[in-house]
Amino acid sequence: MSVFTPVTPEQMAAWLKRYSIGTLAQLEGIATGIENTNYYVTTTHGRYVLTLFEKLTPRELPFYLNLMAHLARHGIPCPQPIADLDNEYLGVLNGKPAAIATCVPGRDLAQATARQCATIGALLAEMHLAGGSYRAQMPNPRGAAWRETVLPQVLPFLDREQATLLREEMRFQAQQPFDALPRSVIHADLFRDNVLWNGAAVGGVIDFYFACTDALLYDVAIAANDWCLENDAEAAFDPARVAALLNAYHEVRPFKPAERAAWPALLRAGALRFWLSRLHDFHLPRAGVLTYAKDPRHFERLLRRHIARSDDLREAFAPCP
Amino acid sequence: MSVFTPVTPEQMAAWLKRYSIGTLAQLEGIATGIENTNYYVTTTHGRYVLTLFEKLTPRELPFYLNLMAHLARHGIPCPQPIADLDNEYLGVLNGKPAAIATCVPGRDLAQATARQCATIGALLAEMHLAGGSYRAQMPNPRGAAWRETVLPQVLPFLDREQATLLREEMRFQAQQPFDALPRSVIHADLFRDNVLWNGAAVGGVIDFYFACTDALLYDVAIAANDWCLENDAEAAFDPARVAALLNAYHEVRPFKPAERAAWPALLRAGALRFWLSRLHDFHLPRAGVLTYAKDPRHFERLLRRHIARSDDLREAFAPCP
Repeated sequence: MSVFTPVTPEQMAAWLKRYSIGTLAQLEGIATGIENTNYYVTTTHGRYVLTLFEKLTPRELPFYLNLMAHLARHGIPCPQPIADLDNEYLGVLNGKPAAIATCVPGRDLAQATARQCATIGALLAEMHLAGGSYRAQMPNPRGAAWRETVLPQVLPFLDREQATLLREEMRFQAQQPFDALPRSVIHADLFRDNVLWNGAAVGGVIDFYFACTDALLYDVAIAANDWCLENDAEAAFDPARVAALLNAYHEVRPFKPAERAAWPALLRAGALRFWLSRLHDFHLPRAGVLTYAKDPRHFERLLRRHIARSDDLREAFAPCP
Repeated sequence: MSVFTPVTPEQMAAWLKRYSIGTLAQLEGIATGIENTNYYVTTTHGRYVLTLFEKLTPRELPFYLNLMAHLARHGIPCPQPIADLDNEYLGVLNGKPAAIATCVPGRDLAQATARQCATIGALLAEMHLAGGSYRAQMPNPRGAAWRETVLPQVLPFLDREQATLLREEMRFQAQQPFDALPRSVIHADLFRDNVLWNGAAVGGVIDFYFACTDALLYDVAIAANDWCLENDAEAAFDPARVAALLNAYHEVRPFKPAERAAWPALLRAGALRFWLSRLHDFHLPRAGVLTYAKDPRHFERLLRRHIARSDDLREAFAPCP
């Protein structure tokens, strides 16, 4: 159950008077999502999603809402926040910061083909190009400082071999010259469950609440770590899917030489970030919140695999001219 | 034929590199429209409309493009201009100012039912509410000054009775206190052929190039003059359709007392404006331009009818609480 803050049809109908999107036809709570309260809102104009933000504050939210609006007006398929009659995206409903956005059509994929990986690669490059004119900045909330904070919290739950791997990878990552790579706004969580497909086309990219300013190629690495798996259980990273994703990206935004060099380390950085956050969520769940804690070992396996095969990873770039 | 400035697929594919909406799949000239060159542009993201502006200038165009963008982000169904990688809506293609916008789905209606008139009334009120936060201003290019310019040009083509009607109506309109009515941005040309329907819902309002700052109720009158006809040939203005349109509008944006009083005169002002422009287009067509000149007598008939039945027109407001 993910409706933390209930909204009645009467409250919704009244709230809709602040907008120009018609009158309420249907209101339906959305069960997925563990951070916010979401409702499908059907009006005489169409279908929207209402979000009541349970953690993010009115000071933090404009970065994300303006980003979605920016990408949408550049033609990137994503939820488009609706401005109210005061021309604001953000309001307050039942004591929570709240916004309404278009409902993107489609369903997520359990597994992606090489062709679908290519579609994602091209779309991610387009998002990066479109994001190039987005002015606001946001440090990565899951960056190096966060890693250092989380490390001592999760170490007690690891065996000696895991602890060594984690410490050594932290040291390795701290030495990487990622600041020299092309940077801009990135999604930072472009997993399969954050892309809805409408047949062969992407209906929309969702869940921009980890978006931040960071290396563009780090976004590609995070996406590849999820989309290019041949087999989730074994964390089997498929070279054909990786090549498809990278080539399609490169067609839209050609990679720089520094990015080619950084690719294996960034794949490891992506695996490390999600290993850490899953360790944290698994062993230190927030009090009173029922979350679907995911197995941290998945990203541990992927990290070990990436470390063992750095040379193979570098070769994935070979087909890009 | 309305492709005044041809665009080749090669030119279009190159131009699309300035955007983040995928690569060209299909390019197809649009035969309707007499002011601009339009193409359907299908990309890997979806379907868009490219417009090359043949008359409007880069100085005039931001008012219209920003208005469409403003309304779209308020949830009004209309073409949404796509920003390029420099974050601009307007570019130059083959020497013409050019923009690309989302393609709204649907077809226009030959005749509207009372229920469809109600849908239009509510949508127009929503457009007016959403437009309330649009800052840019544009004097009505078909306002009082334009009427005075056109009058002597068309008088030579009228018989005595018509000339008397036209002169007297001009005098009547010049005395109306319309400046006291609620004003904001209006569409000013919301005829049936400028609304595309997707089943029972409006897929999109199009053709904002007469939009300007004027009395909101004038926009309602222009729309009613077209949507509420029971029979185009006889200019038969149907009280049931008018009541449906006005009531639905009033539900969203309640009318002010001054608006009720002004309604009959504004219906006449709308009929006068289109009678004048059709007289002008019919008798003084622009050199070298093949237009579909429409019969000016339609709006002459409607104007005569409105003058004869001013009391009935005022009563159309009776159902509005």
